[in-house]
Amino acid sequence: MKKIIVIHGPNINMIGERETAIYGKESFDSINRQIYDCAKQIGLECQIYQSNHEGAIIDKVQASAKEYDGIILNAGALSHYSYAIRDAIAGVMIPTIEVHCSNIFAREEFRHTSVISPVCIGHISGFGKFSYILALNGIKDIV
Amino acid sequence: MKKIIVIHGPNINMIGERETAIYGKESFDSINRQIYDCAKQIGLECQIYQSNHEGAIIDKVQASAKEYDGIILNAGALSHYSYAIRDAIAGVMIPTIEVHCSNIFAREEFRHTSVISPVCIGHISGFGKFSYILALNGIKDIV
Amino acid sequence: MKKIIVIHGPNINMIGERETAIYGKESFDSINRQIYDCAKQIGLECQIYQSNHEGAIIDKVQASAKEYDGIILNAGALSHYSYAIRDAIAGVMIPTIEVHCSNIFAREEFRHTSVISPVCIGHISGFGKFSYILALNGIKDIV
Amino acid sequence: MKKIIVIHGPNINMIGERETAIYGKESFDSINRQIYDCAKQIGLECQIYQSNHEGAIIDKVQASAKEYDGIILNAGALSHYSYAIRDAIAGVMIPTIEVHCSNIFAREEFRHTSVISPVCIGHISGFGKFSYILALNGIKDIV
Amino acid sequence: MKKIIVIHGPNINMIGERETAIYGKESFDSINRQIYDCAKQIGLECQIYQSNHEGAIIDKVQASAKEYDGIILNAGALSHYSYAIRDAIAGVMIPTIEVHCSNIFAREEFRHTSVISPVCIGHISGFGKFSYILALNGIKDIV
Amino acid sequence: MKKIIVIHGPNINMIGERETAIYGKESFDSINRQIYDCAKQIGLECQIYQSNHEGAIIDKVQASAKEYDGIILNAGALSHYSYAIRDAIAGVMIPTIEVHCSNIFAREEFRHTSVISPVCIGHISGFGKFSYILALNGIKDIV
Amino acid sequence: MKKIIVIHGPNINMIGERETAIYGKESFDSINRQIYDCAKQIGLECQIYQSNHEGAIIDKVQASAKEYDGIILNAGALSHYSYAIRDAIAGVMIPTIEVHCSNIFAREEFRHTSVISPVCIGHISGFGKFSYILALNGIKDIV
Amino acid sequence: MKKIIVIHGPNINMIGERETAIYGKESFDSINRQIYDCAKQIGLECQIYQSNHEGAIIDKVQASAKEYDGIILNAGALSHYSYAIRDAIAGVMIPTIEVHCSNIFAREEFRHTSVISPVCIGHISGFGKFSYILALNGIKDIV
Amino acid sequence: MKKIIVIHGPNINMIGERETAIYGKESFDSINRQIYDCAKQIGLECQIYQSNHEGAIIDKVQASAKEYDGIILNAGALSHYSYAIRDAIAGVMIPTIEVHCSNIFAREEFRHTSVISPVCIGHISGFGKFSYILALNGIKDIV
Amino acid sequence: MKKIIVIHGPNINMIGERETAIYGKESFDSINRQIYDCAKQIGLECQIYQSNHEGAIIDKVQASAKEYDGIILNAGALSHYSYAIRDAIAGVMIPTIEVHCSNIFAREEFRHTSVISPVCIGHISGFGKFSYILALNGIKDIV
Amino acid sequence: MKKIIVIHGPNINMIGERETAIYGKESFDSINRQIYDCAKQIGLECQIYQSNHEGAIIDKVQASAKEYDGIILNAGALSHYSYAIRDAIAGVMIPTIEVHCSNIFAREEFRHTSVISPVCIGHISGFGKFSYILALNGIKDIV
Amino acid sequence: MKKIIVIHGPNINMIGERETAIYGKESFDSINRQIYDCAKQIGLECQIYQSNHEGAIIDKVQASAKEYDGIILNAGALSHYSYAIRDAIAGVMIPTIEVHCSNIFAREEFRHTSVISPVCIGHISGFGKFSYILALNGIKDIV
Repeated sequence: MKKIIVIHGPNINMIGERETAIYGKESFDSINRQIYDCAKQIGLECQIYQSNHEGAIIDKVQASAKEYDGIILNAGALSHYSYAIRDAIAGVMIPTIEVHCSNIFAREEFRHTSVISPVCIGHISGFGKFSYILALNGIKDIV
Repeated sequence: MKKIIVIHGPNINMIGERETAIYGKESFDSINRQIYDCAKQIGLECQIYQSNHEGAIIDKVQASAKEYDGIILNAGALSHYSYAIRDAIAGVMIPTIEVHCSNIFAREEFRHTSVISPVCIGHISGFGKFSYILALNGIKDIV
Repeated sequence: MKKIIVIHGPNINMIGERETAIYGKESFDSINRQIYDCAKQIGLECQIYQSNHEGAIIDKVQASAKEYDGIILNAGALSHYSYAIRDAIAGVMIPTIEVHCSNIFAREEFRHTSVISPVCIGHISGFGKFSYILALNGIKDIV
Repeated sequence: MKKIIVIHGPNINMIGERETAIYGKESFDSINRQIYDCAKQIGLECQIYQSNHEGAIIDKVQASAKEYDGIILNAGALSHYSYAIRDAIAGVMIPTIEVHCSNIFAREEFRHTSVISPVCIGHISGFGKFSYILALNGIKDIV
Repeated sequence: MKKIIVIHGPNINMIGERETAIYGKESFDSINRQIYDCAKQIGLECQIYQSNHEGAIIDKVQASAKEYDGIILNAGALSHYSYAIRDAIAGVMIPTIEVHCSNIFAREEFRHTSVISPVCIGHISGFGKFSYILALNGIKDIV
Repeated sequence: MKKIIVIHGPNINMIGERETAIYGKESFDSINRQIYDCAKQIGLECQIYQSNHEGAIIDKVQASAKEYDGIILNAGALSHYSYAIRDAIAGVMIPTIEVHCSNIFAREEFRHTSVISPVCIGHISGFGKFSYILALNGIKDIV
Repeated sequence: MKKIIVIHGPNINMIGERETAIYGKESFDSINRQIYDCAKQIGLECQIYQSNHEGAIIDKVQASAKEYDGIILNAGALSHYSYAIRDAIAGVMIPTIEVHCSNIFAREEFRHTSVISPVCIGHISGFGKFSYILALNGIKDIV
Repeated sequence: MKKIIVIHGPNINMIGERETAIYGKESFDSINRQIYDCAKQIGLECQIYQSNHEGAIIDKVQASAKEYDGIILNAGALSHYSYAIRDAIAGVMIPTIEVHCSNIFAREEFRHTSVISPVCIGHISGFGKFSYILALNGIKDIV
Repeated sequence: MKKIIVIHGPNINMIGERETAIYGKESFDSINRQIYDCAKQIGLECQIYQSNHEGAIIDKVQASAKEYDGIILNAGALSHYSYAIRDAIAGVMIPTIEVHCSNIFAREEFRHTSVISPVCIGHISGFGKFSYILALNGIKDIV
Repeated sequence: MKKIIVIHGPNINMIGERETAIYGKESFDSINRQIYDCAKQIGLECQIYQSNHEGAIIDKVQASAKEYDGIILNAGALSHYSYAIRDAIAGVMIPTIEVHCSNIFAREEFRHTSVISPVCIGHISGFGKFSYILALNGIKDIV
Repeated sequence: MKKIIVIHGPNINMIGERETAIYGKESFDSINRQIYDCAKQIGLECQIYQSNHEGAIIDKVQASAKEYDGIILNAGALSHYSYAIRDAIAGVMIPTIEVHCSNIFAREEFRHTSVISPVCIGHISGFGKFSYILALNGIKDIV
Repeated sequence: MKKIIVIHGPNINMIGERETAIYGKESFDSINRQIYDCAKQIGLECQIYQSNHEGAIIDKVQASAKEYDGIILNAGALSHYSYAIRDAIAGVMIPTIEVHCSNIFAREEFRHTSVISPVCIGHISGFGKFSYILALNGIKDIV
């Protein structure tokens, strides 16, 4: 069974609590449970990780290469400037899917550019928690 | 049963023939059949339309509001400058999903910006033909 | 009696239906009738044309040079990038007035620049349907 | 009877004397008389004011809120940088129409952007003295 | 006793009347009284001046060098382009504090840059009328 | 015998009528006859097509791949923004020569950049009708 | 009694040791003591936190929402690019004041833009250690 | 005898007092006397005017057309943004020489561009008070 | 018989040796012989000159005005920044054709702009050695 | 004996494993041993540190001031945006050498700018592991 | 007696022959004679040098430091990009005056920026041949 | 024994004389002697060349390909705009090391970009004369 890691970046843990007009009111735990269940249902083993620390995310991406077959990454606001995470993704051999809950292109100018997009396989944004679900389906065909 | 229209923009009809290094060798017809089948399978009625004409795409988007419950749109290169298609999408009440087969963020600079993204609900790119399949799954939860 | 053509670009036909917060709820037909009546009242013969196709608008502008004494043009979103329409206007000898219903300068950044403005005689925006009426009055003094 | 103030900014008083290739040879007084007459004819009481001083224009705009029902403003070159006049317009409750005699979009680059446009109701440019006449007609429907 | 001059730029006199959603409904006079009282309370002699005229503000800044020990300046929208006021501040020996009632960084793009900031000692914005009160406290430690 | 298609974009059909100071007074038909004759003379079979419609040009380029050995394309103003035509050219296997009658680098800023140049084999501009003649000679050596 | 947390970002702990020409020679501990004393004096309970780690600052901001009534934040150089801290601030319900010891607008170009300013209530810079003192006074009126 | 007016813009009156490292310590009056004497010596009648008010400078430029044969203008910091003064100069028939005491190209970025340069006959900067003397010599050959 | 000079700029002499993937393996001498022969064949007297020195190219262009009827210039990388060569071309009365062997628009960003294009009659690029041959044919019709 | 610290930033630990086309296949440990040996050989005591965490690098730089005589820093992708590391370097009194294995100027646009370069003594890039060796030699002459 | 060198850059030698609409018809020799005579008259020994070669101008500037007391430099189009000449000027101890015959600010965009201005003492442009005469007078007061 | 050529560009010959605050007071000859000695010591035959002429440097680079095994190039200010030198380097098969004495990233904006960096193997800057010594050591490992 293929193993996938879902990595949530900074502030994703506050989902359901912060800016509910944008992100909805469903809690982080509840969403993670659905991600976990969906993965199981489509035959993927799934781990979930969250950190507000760029360095910790890089550590995790580096380590993933040996343990997982694919990465689903919502790097949050780090997506817009963390070239270090970009390099980490480019450095592992496994495919990475970029995910955003909100439609980043319909928000502030700075959110329109993701520096990690060019090194990911695919990009999914705007579907709320379903962005993760779609990413699981998408990565299944690839890994 | 919800009705969805899949609109392919300019040059998408050449898929399988042009730039196969980027887009693969599967034919346009074959991909459309899979889109059609997948839609059926998940309980959506699906129509497919292709045009190289910006104006024809706008006509179709305008008309869709009355016939369909959602739009899946791969506007091809028009995505990067057709503010007229953007206005058409913004003008219909039904949700639109933006789709690209290739990862537009990993290609030429001009492909990094889609002027239609801000008025779409969600954005999926980089999964080849599966981008459409994921969009069907994604739109199902919305319409 | 001088003859004027009013050309409506993409999505203007949806007026009264789309984005009514910006454009109001009066229908396209109703507005056209008022344009037609106003023209008559001030002694102008007036034809009205609408298309979502850039090429069709160019065809019409080219043809207008032989049939009409002036053009009133609301090119919609094409105003912001259609250098081809600009060339068509520059190529006909008759005066063109640029019209927009909304105040394009109070909306998104990309709407602040019209590539056709430099080759038009005058520019009127922000008066809703009255933009056309003012343009008719304005062109009357010129043709 | 509704009361309108027409405010002319810097160098408009030199019309008919300066750059006659652009602005024509009719004198400032003559144009003002026609503005006055036209206003009367369409049932508006009209005052006319001119100043080369940004501060004086701001003073006048602020004062207008209590005396007039609308403003027709040709801020001349101040249009391109006076955010202070912009704030004054935004601060009064009455509608303002921006007017330019020449087609500012067909001239030097710096004239293509008016910082006061976003806070005005409408914009008319390129009709010479008729720009004011059209503005009077336009404001009549609004006030 | 140290003497301070508070200079209000264009449109600050309309506070309480214009854009009350941003600036609140307390009147200009009432705010000035509080500034005056606070100054007194912390042992500063305070004069207050307002003008919509860039030139008058420059005249006042130049004159302040001989009469006052410090300047608290809210140049309003002139902050964003008046290099002439900047030069006036740079030319006087006494310290200047820049003050804004609103958080200029949370508003339109053009308000994010103040050309006078580099020649002021300090910058306070976003506290409404309290911005002035904080500036009085801040300048007290400096003069 | 090799077969070439010459595609004229928007407004090229007005040559000899519009902007004669730039393009000369020779008619479109007369120029086409000379292109046709020259092709024959150097041993090429030549078809000529003109359209003001971006979509029609894309249709024609796509179709050309099966019928012709090379394309000579003057896309007119579409050259400056039609990434969709660019993709069509990139998608056909046959060589394309970009042609302009005027020296586009000596005209307005927006004409200095052609988005289709990077996918063409060669570029010829500034020789009036002879640009086409040179292109015929140039393409002969390639096809 | 209201509780405030003062968060110092990277390198602020070196104050008094590094770049003393800009920041003065008073030690970090000494300044913190004065912040603490001042808070007490004006009736605020005050905690102080410092970290060179962006992630740790985000963790602290997230946690603050439950324990404190307001945040005073000097994010140091992170102010200029940490959109992740920005999101953390936007995500907590309590008011944040941005503080800088130096006048960031009088230094290098990159320091003129703070990406966290738009989501803070107010901004104070240039007063050295007094920037914190003024912020305490400012936040008192808000919380 | 030809008549020349020397117009000093904002803060020039502070010369000898402000920023003496850049402008030297000679007083404004002393410099004006030398300008006056030099003019006399080379056979020019010379008036001198100073104002911190953009509007007053425009008034003076407009009035100069009837009384003087040439203008020597040091618009100070207004040079960098006053398009209104630019229009005033462009509107009078008499030649204008732009003068700066300091080498504006060796100072801050914003001083490198003068919006009035394009409508002046000549430009002299960097010679301190001698800039005016050279301008007098230069204008003598022109008027 | 008309006389033409072909001027090769820096590094053109290395053709056939450097970057053969771009420029092919035919030697500089061999190409020059073909240029010479072609010129003869179509009735032009042709001289060929090469230099790596901008100044020498300017000297040659200046001298050409008296000896030749036209210039064919491949300025190599100097095309992208030598405004001095541009001025030399603009200063001679004889027509100049700009030539590049490679398609400069398909290479690095800096090669997309030629500062000499605006003062040349025509531009030919992308045909390898045939670019020169086409230029000879093109200039024949002009001189 | 002088003491030097070599600090490796994010992803440098993956050298020999990731992107071996750019970085070669020699392992991180092997390279560190050579750095260590070389230092010893030229009479420097050398410590080596690696972290993927920006904050940890800042902590280390701050601490280095008291323990080491110089820093050799390869900040990896953090070089391109970490103004916080820049401030840390500027805040310690000991010299810092910036090192990159690859030639950052021959890679993606974003790698061409290092925000830490201006506060380092010297910069060495493009020599693979030898970049460190050269830096050791270079710093020896400075400390 | 002070010794001055006047250095003319590329294409200045063509004055009177090229672009006479801009530069007039007086010959280069005639202008040089007047420069020579004027220098003599005001007590300066003057040498004149012209070259189209950037390197030769740098050689001359370097050599001037030992032979002359000042430089008057019209670097022609090299002014807009030759940072190497800029460095040469910055490297000699003697003052340099930048001169242009035409008003470079009223011409093409690229002529508005001179990279050598920041290292010259003063700048004179727009007076035709008199620019040199004024420079001689200006430099006399400095050397 | 491998042969290396060291090429010094414009103004490097003035080292020790010009801008000694930046470059130190050691003479050009003395530095060259040390370069020569160091080369010898590490087993390289070394030639040294200096020119202020871009063309002469290109000539030398082209010629080097046949005589030398590597190039050490300090192109001085030409580094920032000479695409012609860039092409010369790209055209020779031997490796080139870019060298600067000063830290170009800590100086004026225009010095931050070297157009020759992308085609060099490595880059060393900021070590004064030791930059050359390090380059010799660096190139030894490559040739």
